[in-house]
Amino acid sequence: MRLIIIGADAAGMSTASRAKRNDSSLDVLIFEKTEDVSYSACGMPYNIADPNRPIEDLVVRRAGVFREEQGLDLRTGHRVDMIDTSSKKVSGVDAKGNPFSSNYDKLLIATGAVPIRPSLPGFNLPGVMILKNLDDGRRIKGYLETRSVTNVCIIGMGYIALEMAESLKSRGIAVSMVKPRPRFIPWMNEIMANRAQRELETHEIGVHTGVEVKRIEAYKGGLKVVAKNAEFEVDMVIVAIGVLPASDLADKAGLKLGVSQSVSLDRHMRTSNPDIYAAGDCADAYHVVTGQKVWIPLALRANRSGWAAADNITGKESIVDGVAGTAVFKVFDLQVARTGLNVEEAKKAGFDPVERMIEASTRAHAHPGSAPIWAQMVADRKTGRILGAQLLSTEGAVHRINAVVTALHSKMTVTEFTQLDFAYAPPFGPVWDPLLVVAHQLMKKM
Amino acid sequence: MRLIIIGADAAGMSTASRAKRNDSSLDVLIFEKTEDVSYSACGMPYNIADPNRPIEDLVVRRAGVFREEQGLDLRTGHRVDMIDTSSKKVSGVDAKGNPFSSNYDKLLIATGAVPIRPSLPGFNLPGVMILKNLDDGRRIKGYLETRSVTNVCIIGMGYIALEMAESLKSRGIAVSMVKPRPRFIPWMNEIMANRAQRELETHEIGVHTGVEVKRIEAYKGGLKVVAKNAEFEVDMVIVAIGVLPASDLADKAGLKLGVSQSVSLDRHMRTSNPDIYAAGDCADAYHVVTGQKVWIPLALRANRSGWAAADNITGKESIVDGVAGTAVFKVFDLQVARTGLNVEEAKKAGFDPVERMIEASTRAHAHPGSAPIWAQMVADRKTGRILGAQLLSTEGAVHRINAVVTALHSKMTVTEFTQLDFAYAPPFGPVWDPLLVVAHQLMKKM
Repeated sequence: MRLIIIGADAAGMSTASRAKRNDSSLDVLIFEKTEDVSYSACGMPYNIADPNRPIEDLVVRRAGVFREEQGLDLRTGHRVDMIDTSSKKVSGVDAKGNPFSSNYDKLLIATGAVPIRPSLPGFNLPGVMILKNLDDGRRIKGYLETRSVTNVCIIGMGYIALEMAESLKSRGIAVSMVKPRPRFIPWMNEIMANRAQRELETHEIGVHTGVEVKRIEAYKGGLKVVAKNAEFEVDMVIVAIGVLPASDLADKAGLKLGVSQSVSLDRHMRTSNPDIYAAGDCADAYHVVTGQKVWIPLALRANRSGWAAADNITGKESIVDGVAGTAVFKVFDLQVARTGLNVEEAKKAGFDPVERMIEASTRAHAHPGSAPIWAQMVADRKTGRILGAQLLSTEGAVHRINAVVTALHSKMTVTEFTQLDFAYAPPFGPVWDPLLVVAHQLMKKM
Repeated sequence: MRLIIIGADAAGMSTASRAKRNDSSLDVLIFEKTEDVSYSACGMPYNIADPNRPIEDLVVRRAGVFREEQGLDLRTGHRVDMIDTSSKKVSGVDAKGNPFSSNYDKLLIATGAVPIRPSLPGFNLPGVMILKNLDDGRRIKGYLETRSVTNVCIIGMGYIALEMAESLKSRGIAVSMVKPRPRFIPWMNEIMANRAQRELETHEIGVHTGVEVKRIEAYKGGLKVVAKNAEFEVDMVIVAIGVLPASDLADKAGLKLGVSQSVSLDRHMRTSNPDIYAAGDCADAYHVVTGQKVWIPLALRANRSGWAAADNITGKESIVDGVAGTAVFKVFDLQVARTGLNVEEAKKAGFDPVERMIEASTRAHAHPGSAPIWAQMVADRKTGRILGAQLLSTEGAVHRINAVVTALHSKMTVTEFTQLDFAYAPPFGPVWDPLLVVAHQLMKKM
């Protein structure tokens, strides 16, 4: 039996490796349009921060290892352009311009996501960068190494934009960030979002919300970012305004698309065609809180859905719970964490949300080095169920969120949550963990 | 209605404050035998580390605040010696030797725990210390400040012993630890326990297991700790070999005692006498994994059971889930965390335990500053339920354990746990969190 996989990043290679492990007789053929496979895309901002580390450090496993040690037929530089579902064949063009085609018994689409490219005059100027694949990382690092870059404008304020701001700043580069909408991190509790914005400003990052860029111009050997009421003269521009599912191939093949035009999957990672599976950032997922389909492209989901697809393809039933909307990131010295729904999302999903936010301490009373920690929790008034939480602090925010993740998967109520026998020792938190405090406060409000 | 409370530490004062808040007409009378109320006992080793911080920093709320702002009749220096359940009266002696007595409608026993005092020749010599209440902390700090202490022997290797080793070492004092049993941290997975022991040895703490102390002698102006095949010439000895429930009063009053002679409670914090409640370290609790009674004296439980007792006393029903056996502590640069049962405990409770331990990384592939993290998980072969977990690392161990705590309260299976949508960002962990990795490995073994 031949399994063809389109795309050789997290989801594709997770599927390939596991499917071959499950069934060594399986003929696994992977087409990847770039030359890079299996790398940590999320690590790019941190790698870019360090001029002494090659971008290739981010490669988790080289193509040669997959080929020689795992017996996978991995073809890089092979772009698939068409899936013919009636003859069960994929076809495309390789890096040398030669056409290729191959028949499949089972097919996995793992084409990932693509960065949103704005229709912005000047977007194609040299020095205007996006950051999605390893080649983008190479390009940015190369630019920083060959030019004197002292000033960068980042368009967008999502995770990647924030991580890039810190990365560039650590190289001594001045950074301005712009976005058209008025709120910084709009999904976050406002007090917490303000604290995060202050963290950037403390590190001399210019945060310009409500600034809609009209065009980018070549200017004095550099670039000028022009908005209605602001201009930024810089040496480089990074556009990080989000991603979209790479679902064109699936769409052309007549497969059903869902939320945000992502490939629609059942709980077995199967598309609307019984021989075609999908995994990773190109596909949708069930949300564990709402039970509804969502499109939240993240690394863990990509790996997990790849494993599940591999199991189902090789005849070992595997069902995936879904995603909880967990996301964590670092903003200089701050840790930011969220999971589940915020108030707006909860309303949209038909819940009657109640919210509470508290400020507590990261260490016990009188313990040296204590810092503030903010914890927010949302629950449904009717059922008492926890719907989501957010945490923000200089320590202990990120790993604390996983307790709420576990509670969301268990459909735990706030009252049940207040009973949890959480860890306590003076260097790591107060007797009543901040999450227990916010749960108690929320319970009173309901 | 009069509520009398015996003991003014965490459990007693939590009950007092909350009962008065629930019902401001309540007459709340608290007898405390020492002069100290409401302090962070767990913070003592960290306070002792710093000669510039007074021990009084650990007082969370002064007695005056309870009296003046909360309207509580708090009498320190009042030792209760007897509870007469037929006439509903307590009696005792105050600090000046004057007898007192008072009638109650409801009574709360919050007498805490007492340190085990070994019947060891020389235990009463000056310079031999225990560490339980604030006066013990005062005595140790005073001794360190007035004598030239360069060398200390700690008898015992529990949390307090370990924290004291680090505390004294940070003051430049040489430390040797001894215990009679052969295994260092016997409840911990052996590879993890060895790593923890190495952490102590790296910091030049002498760890002497299998050394049973026979006597302590006055020697050359200092002390000599004498074992069968070892001697330690030191300036101070700290005996930290565990605690016992302070349940004498309850026992004399005819109340039912349970595990380890602790006061036996129902889920409403009621003793075998309907008008007498207990809370905190003197009392037992239900274990959330086994459903059986256990005696695990810890701060969160003390506070939580105090609140529950207050609610039930004031007519607002409150039931407490129980304890999960969660414990975390710091050993120099290491974080140690556990929750639930280990293999031996699981067997004793009638489960068929399967264990797995893995070593992973605290940060993503190629992320700078990554360190090893060890994660262990135990599950029941028959039902698939998670029974417990242990974590050990220089970062991210303590707060990660709370996800397992939540899973234990939810009676989650290992398979369900592998589905959790945990947090991921390169500075904080690998894509597959160490707990997910160990759960996957454990699932395969079952």
